[in-house]
Amino acid sequence: FEVPKVPEKDKNDPYANEPLRSPALIPSSSTPFNAEPPLSILVDNFLTPNDLFFVRNHLPVPIVDPKKYHLDITVQGKRKSVSFTLDDLKKKFPKKTVASVVQCAGNRRSEMVKVKAVKGLNWGAAALSNAEWSGASLDDVLKKAGIDLESLDMEHVQFDGMDMDPTGAPYGASIPMELARRLKKDIIIAYEMNGEEIPRDHGYPVRIIIPGIVGARQVKWLNKITISNEESSCHWQQKDYKGFHASIDWHNVDFSTVPAIMETPIQSAICEPANGSELEEGADEVTVKGYAWSGGGRGVVRVDLSLDGGKTWHSAELKPNNQPLYKSYAWTLWEATLPLPKDHKGKVEIICKAVDSSYNVQPDNVDGIWNLRGVLSNAWYRVQVKVP
Amino acid sequence: FEVPKVPEKDKNDPYANEPLRSPALIPSSSTPFNAEPPLSILVDNFLTPNDLFFVRNHLPVPIVDPKKYHLDITVQGKRKSVSFTLDDLKKKFPKKTVASVVQCAGNRRSEMVKVKAVKGLNWGAAALSNAEWSGASLDDVLKKAGIDLESLDMEHVQFDGMDMDPTGAPYGASIPMELARRLKKDIIIAYEMNGEEIPRDHGYPVRIIIPGIVGARQVKWLNKITISNEESSCHWQQKDYKGFHASIDWHNVDFSTVPAIMETPIQSAICEPANGSELEEGADEVTVKGYAWSGGGRGVVRVDLSLDGGKTWHSAELKPNNQPLYKSYAWTLWEATLPLPKDHKGKVEIICKAVDSSYNVQPDNVDGIWNLRGVLSNAWYRVQVKVP
Ligand SMILES: [Mo]
Ligand SMILES: [Mo]
Repeated sequence: FEVPKVPEKDKNDPYANEPLRSPALIPSSSTPFNAEPPLSILVDNFLTPNDLFFVRNHLPVPIVDPKKYHLDITVQGKRKSVSFTLDDLKKKFPKKTVASVVQCAGNRRSEMVKVKAVKGLNWGAAALSNAEWSGASLDDVLKKAGIDLESLDMEHVQFDGMDMDPTGAPYGASIPMELARRLKKDIIIAYEMNGEEIPRDHGYPVRIIIPGIVGARQVKWLNKITISNEESSCHWQQKDYKGFHASIDWHNVDFSTVPAIMETPIQSAICEPANGSELEEGADEVTVKGYAWSGGGRGVVRVDLSLDGGKTWHSAELKPNNQPLYKSYAWTLWEATLPLPKDHKGKVEIICKAVDSSYNVQPDNVDGIWNLRGVLSNAWYRVQVKVP
Repeated sequence: FEVPKVPEKDKNDPYANEPLRSPALIPSSSTPFNAEPPLSILVDNFLTPNDLFFVRNHLPVPIVDPKKYHLDITVQGKRKSVSFTLDDLKKKFPKKTVASVVQCAGNRRSEMVKVKAVKGLNWGAAALSNAEWSGASLDDVLKKAGIDLESLDMEHVQFDGMDMDPTGAPYGASIPMELARRLKKDIIIAYEMNGEEIPRDHGYPVRIIIPGIVGARQVKWLNKITISNEESSCHWQQKDYKGFHASIDWHNVDFSTVPAIMETPIQSAICEPANGSELEEGADEVTVKGYAWSGGGRGVVRVDLSLDGGKTWHSAELKPNNQPLYKSYAWTLWEATLPLPKDHKGKVEIICKAVDSSYNVQPDNVDGIWNLRGVLSNAWYRVQVKVP
């Protein structure tokens, strides 16, 4: 790793030092950079390749010198904080690995926009990816710092990044103590992504991986962990990434009335065939592929497909993700080959819906879950294909 | 407690020794006895009174002499089992208490029946209740028996009851080890319900309380705990209480293809006003009360109400259940007073839908979740009222 040199002319441009990115990524914004891969590539690999992993940046990508990196851990009200260098994290703790999905709260927002305008990036269905993350477990690191979450009477665990807004305030997030206690052995202070250094866009050199919860809390460029009685005061914790009903809009929203999104609901999408694509001439069947995933470590028990608007259903074949059903952080890729309806009249709508290990289901349509920020968009997924 | 004497003439009637029951309960079957309270009483008390708690029996209620009671704990493949008397359970372990909902998998089945016939008791929306359960924690008892679930390389924890079918086979159930590990401090070997001895209908003298999962696994009249590599072989674990899509019916069902229901999805219902009831003459508002609950310890973040078919929504006031949002086993009762639509034409439909801490939602309608056993019925709840 070499610390990039900033040309003199770009000194005032916070986005002058962005990393190189794969041209295959489809940007939804350039500063900050946000992009998703083509939907079809998601089903090509159980682990999404690093350069194709969707990117969700809230701020400019910071430049972090790995030699100077240290993670500070503090307990609110205690004077002493404990620091670990990157080398400490790599050498003083067992290396733990977990395959885990990161999903943006706004994944599939573009479907919600069709009901009524929302505020947010116009994500398709690929604002999530699955990778194998390696690092020290939060549990091990906290123990070494002399912190026992079970006995500590505090309410939140805060994470601060090194990415900063123009006022110098960092991106940050927190999770409730109950979640930290439940997950702590599975929370990874990660320094590797799919066996490589974490790319700059994904948090180089260290990010927190909190399996089963929304991407927004899995802070990249991790700078500081604070055990506190307060939630993170960060904008994205307090005034964003929350779910409201459809009659709350910007004129009457009170962000304090509902909790920040942590675990996310059951989700699935069809990655192949593409929406609007044409099947082979005279085709009498169609092979459908996609992903399914749920938050909270809930595995996928079923993916149902319909080619007739929900009158009849077929179960897809689920590819095992090799994680226990009740501690399932990776996604489940699935596939099915289905006979086309005989009365298709040249076009067919394919619907998928998934069920998680808590038998939670996706809602039938997006109207009932519309919300002003366009988050948590997980209605039945639909693609239209032409049958020549 | 006195062991009931069986009159000579009833010796061959397995249902001759059923307990006395409140006449307020509304039976859905008499042998075995199954009954729900009137829906409206659910919102009267955070803790459902013992005599009004819904009853779900699969078999005759056994007569258990508390002096002879003992709980046997076995690890598959080990010769020695460990036994605890009722007195042991009460005196050798700290008494733990948890407020937790028990819900039948078939709660609200009667709504599913309207789409297409299903097999099962015709439950309304009161096949669930909330009580405070006290007893020894499974964790403490297993530790005393020398068993550590973390290090034991086994897949399931089985529970056998003392209620038996005509062949002498007991009711039984099991939970996956991952769930047992996650929950173990919260699983209660209960000998008290709302501060009293557990009534015979609810498992006297001892039942297992596994917070956040379906009632069917929370075995009553608990006889035996077995740590095993096998799931319970019981009918209700293997060939019942599983969820399928709507195109699976009795001619094509293969119960081995999906996992047994454990955690259940987000649920809510309106308890007041009653469906079909009449509001006061000239009323211009309506007070609506109900419950919301989700499995897996997920608390309730929102209950949304609509009086215009889902076009506009109002949030109900949630009564705190005093449990953490991510470890919430009791239900959330709620209430709202809403203005009636001016164009009501003498009748109004009230809809409720709830959202849990994982932002899972209830599906819009029952068609998409219909299944042959009529379980997991959690579509938006609707009541029609007349406005004179
Ligand atoms: Mo996000
Ligand atoms: Mo049940």
